[in-house]
Amino acid sequence: MTKQIHLNAFAQHSVSPHAIGLWKHPDHEGDAHGSLSYWLKLSEILERGTFDTLFLADVLGIYDVYEGSSRAALEQAVQVPAHDPTVIVSALAQATKHLGFAVTVSATYASPYKLARLFSTLDHVTDGRIAWNVVTGYLESEARNLGLAGRIQHDERYDRADEFLDVVYKLWEQSWERDAIVKDVQKGRYIDSSKVHPIRHEGKYFDVPGIHLVDPSPQRTPVLFQAGASSRGRDFAAKHAEAIFTDTQNSKEAVPALRSFTADLRRRLQWNGRRPDALKVFPGFVPVVGSTEEEAWRHYEELKSYVNYDGSAALLSGHAGFDFSTLDPDEYVENLPSGAIQSTFESYTSTKPDAKWTVRDAILHHGIGAGSTPIVGTPEQIADRLETLVVDGGADGFNVGQTVTLRSIETFVDEVVPELRARSLFRETYEDGTLRERLFGKGQRELRDDHYGRRVTIEKGDVFA
Amino acid sequence: MTKQIHLNAFAQHSVSPHAIGLWKHPDHEGDAHGSLSYWLKLSEILERGTFDTLFLADVLGIYDVYEGSSRAALEQAVQVPAHDPTVIVSALAQATKHLGFAVTVSATYASPYKLARLFSTLDHVTDGRIAWNVVTGYLESEARNLGLAGRIQHDERYDRADEFLDVVYKLWEQSWERDAIVKDVQKGRYIDSSKVHPIRHEGKYFDVPGIHLVDPSPQRTPVLFQAGASSRGRDFAAKHAEAIFTDTQNSKEAVPALRSFTADLRRRLQWNGRRPDALKVFPGFVPVVGSTEEEAWRHYEELKSYVNYDGSAALLSGHAGFDFSTLDPDEYVENLPSGAIQSTFESYTSTKPDAKWTVRDAILHHGIGAGSTPIVGTPEQIADRLETLVVDGGADGFNVGQTVTLRSIETFVDEVVPELRARSLFRETYEDGTLRERLFGKGQRELRDDHYGRRVTIEKGDVFA
Repeated sequence: MTKQIHLNAFAQHSVSPHAIGLWKHPDHEGDAHGSLSYWLKLSEILERGTFDTLFLADVLGIYDVYEGSSRAALEQAVQVPAHDPTVIVSALAQATKHLGFAVTVSATYASPYKLARLFSTLDHVTDGRIAWNVVTGYLESEARNLGLAGRIQHDERYDRADEFLDVVYKLWEQSWERDAIVKDVQKGRYIDSSKVHPIRHEGKYFDVPGIHLVDPSPQRTPVLFQAGASSRGRDFAAKHAEAIFTDTQNSKEAVPALRSFTADLRRRLQWNGRRPDALKVFPGFVPVVGSTEEEAWRHYEELKSYVNYDGSAALLSGHAGFDFSTLDPDEYVENLPSGAIQSTFESYTSTKPDAKWTVRDAILHHGIGAGSTPIVGTPEQIADRLETLVVDGGADGFNVGQTVTLRSIETFVDEVVPELRARSLFRETYEDGTLRERLFGKGQRELRDDHYGRRVTIEKGDVFA
Repeated sequence: MTKQIHLNAFAQHSVSPHAIGLWKHPDHEGDAHGSLSYWLKLSEILERGTFDTLFLADVLGIYDVYEGSSRAALEQAVQVPAHDPTVIVSALAQATKHLGFAVTVSATYASPYKLARLFSTLDHVTDGRIAWNVVTGYLESEARNLGLAGRIQHDERYDRADEFLDVVYKLWEQSWERDAIVKDVQKGRYIDSSKVHPIRHEGKYFDVPGIHLVDPSPQRTPVLFQAGASSRGRDFAAKHAEAIFTDTQNSKEAVPALRSFTADLRRRLQWNGRRPDALKVFPGFVPVVGSTEEEAWRHYEELKSYVNYDGSAALLSGHAGFDFSTLDPDEYVENLPSGAIQSTFESYTSTKPDAKWTVRDAILHHGIGAGSTPIVGTPEQIADRLETLVVDGGADGFNVGQTVTLRSIETFVDEVVPELRARSLFRETYEDGTLRERLFGKGQRELRDDHYGRRVTIEKGDVFA
């Protein structure tokens, strides 16, 4: 049987978060994101397309690295407004039956005790369809507004996140035994208190002595998504993540690069005592579909004509932590000093590797997909590329980006999904079960036994202590 | 025209949060609280009863003062499990048209920057039907699990909450001008960046330099609920609250006591430059309805027979910060040393002032309503009492507690609400509008001009700074 892929729709609770300037497009509906009807319509499309999840990215800050100002980010609505993505989940869960929800919450600015409660509640109301996308934050402006003097250093963010996860595993996996709720009317006990345990966590960053506030939810620990490309980030993923979101490129080298990325991850999984299939790898991309290749490229050029240079550069400057206003837009990328800045552009120039790319070209291209590589072509060509990334690159599925919302994701569902189904790469219908069961097989409601979170233990004393 | 009252349904995202032991009652449905269907059913009942809000109480800790242990609280499910109340709002907003949602979030354990984003998002998705019940937390166990060495002292909690509110007013009221979103396709600007202002807050407890992450919602600032009985608490309410939740009692003295409470609040309002009608006073009570007075009292005795002594004492011990296991259950209340302990019981003994109350009687009585006084009688008698509390006591409406959920609130809607409507005390149908408009009149979508939050200002620099 052909490998079955997974599909997540990449979204964010903002106007046009990953297509900068496309708010001007007459068919763009993203300015309705503040109302539930927009999200209900998206969820209906995704459930029709038997998607695995609606993936909700998030930031808690503003893109103010470009020109040292928020001006460009504000004018182009670059991930601002940034509404709270956790709020909409219950309405969408009520309106759907199978769609999962992967919600981004930064571990850097949360309390593990409250975050554990939030996700357990979400897992209850979605009946086991919730994932947590674990991020540690990259925007200095987040840190300042949340009371930290500056952004915590990259590696320390991961150290803290590591302990954060220890705490939440203890709360989710260890605090309540599965059968703690007894509802024993005869004995007059709702909960068997001997089966609820204070976690007594004392660490470098957190002290959490008490019990978890929520009884075990269908999945206990939400499905854990993560995106991390650095070595430290990959180690973190290999220890904790069940799904990792990564970038891919369009060049010929992109397939071996993805294969070596997935192979590297599988090795790191092994070092963590996990089987090679314990982590799903989801490259992100943006479909640009046409009935012919030429029409698809015309569509690409039309999209690019809506992209705003300042806004796209503001987004890229925030991601890279470098002010791209210091570069000449007419300079050729190949003439830039080699190193971080040039490599930032590599994923864009790889889309048309034979062309000479200016900084302007690359920045405008970045505006379509916000770093997720556009895949431009007919439904067959796009399915070909995805199949190659799966078969030769080792991808387990994809995060599908949007351009003109909601039209672009609907086009993907109506035109590319049938092609994937015809190749037996993607499900025709949903089976019942939790989100984790859909990713890891029937019966796998909770973390797999090879996951680190299953091995975290607490000293089980009674509630008197 | 007769004064129109407001009704809020008192609930919490737990099994039987305000009726301790009633989970054993065969008609009790509270163990379904983890699923949305339970809340959808409750919301449907409340909208049929034209209630103003579903009021969601919350705690972040466990009741472990009694016997120095969580045992009794766990066994009787005393506000544990404690799911996150913010999660369910969007599903309920989608299923209703008019019902408001007053959600409790502790200011002590939140960041003002994130809380402001949460409530702005909630106000958007509910289309202006959200209220924030501002609490500062009373459980030591909350503080310990949230990384504070111990509970912050009472007055300092209020000082910190005062500054917390300064920050969120700046974010809600000042950061974005109403017309900042321009969607100007010609000029290529979605937001006029000159109309979005960093708040530059630097204070004793918080530094928040940036802009609010969310564009202005229908009410901007959510309707502000608060409960505070101490002098410091009343000052806080008189400055910030638009609705205050208080206790009442059953004795003859209760009406003048409520009148003097409301009069005291009106004076404090004046000191804060607010008009006397700027704060709605909502006593809490629990209806125990019968077709005759005798039947109502039989119903009361039936409810009391389900109350669990340990669980009720655990709740009371947590509220009072005193371990009631040190008292002899057979001791008469009148023989207790006068002072705080005896006065804790006053609201219970006032229900039947002529009887001799033991500690056991009072604790079991506390289990029905969790401190909200039961009003026992026919629909007419209950309506009489409520009318007296409004006309002679100065109440603006009530928080209606529950016993056997959802039956008890449905009985109130079906039997008492029609009686209130027949007296022209309560609306027959909803009018369109935001929650604040329902409380303060058509057109009053945002904070009134006499509210302190309208006078908080920021220095408006541009986004470059």
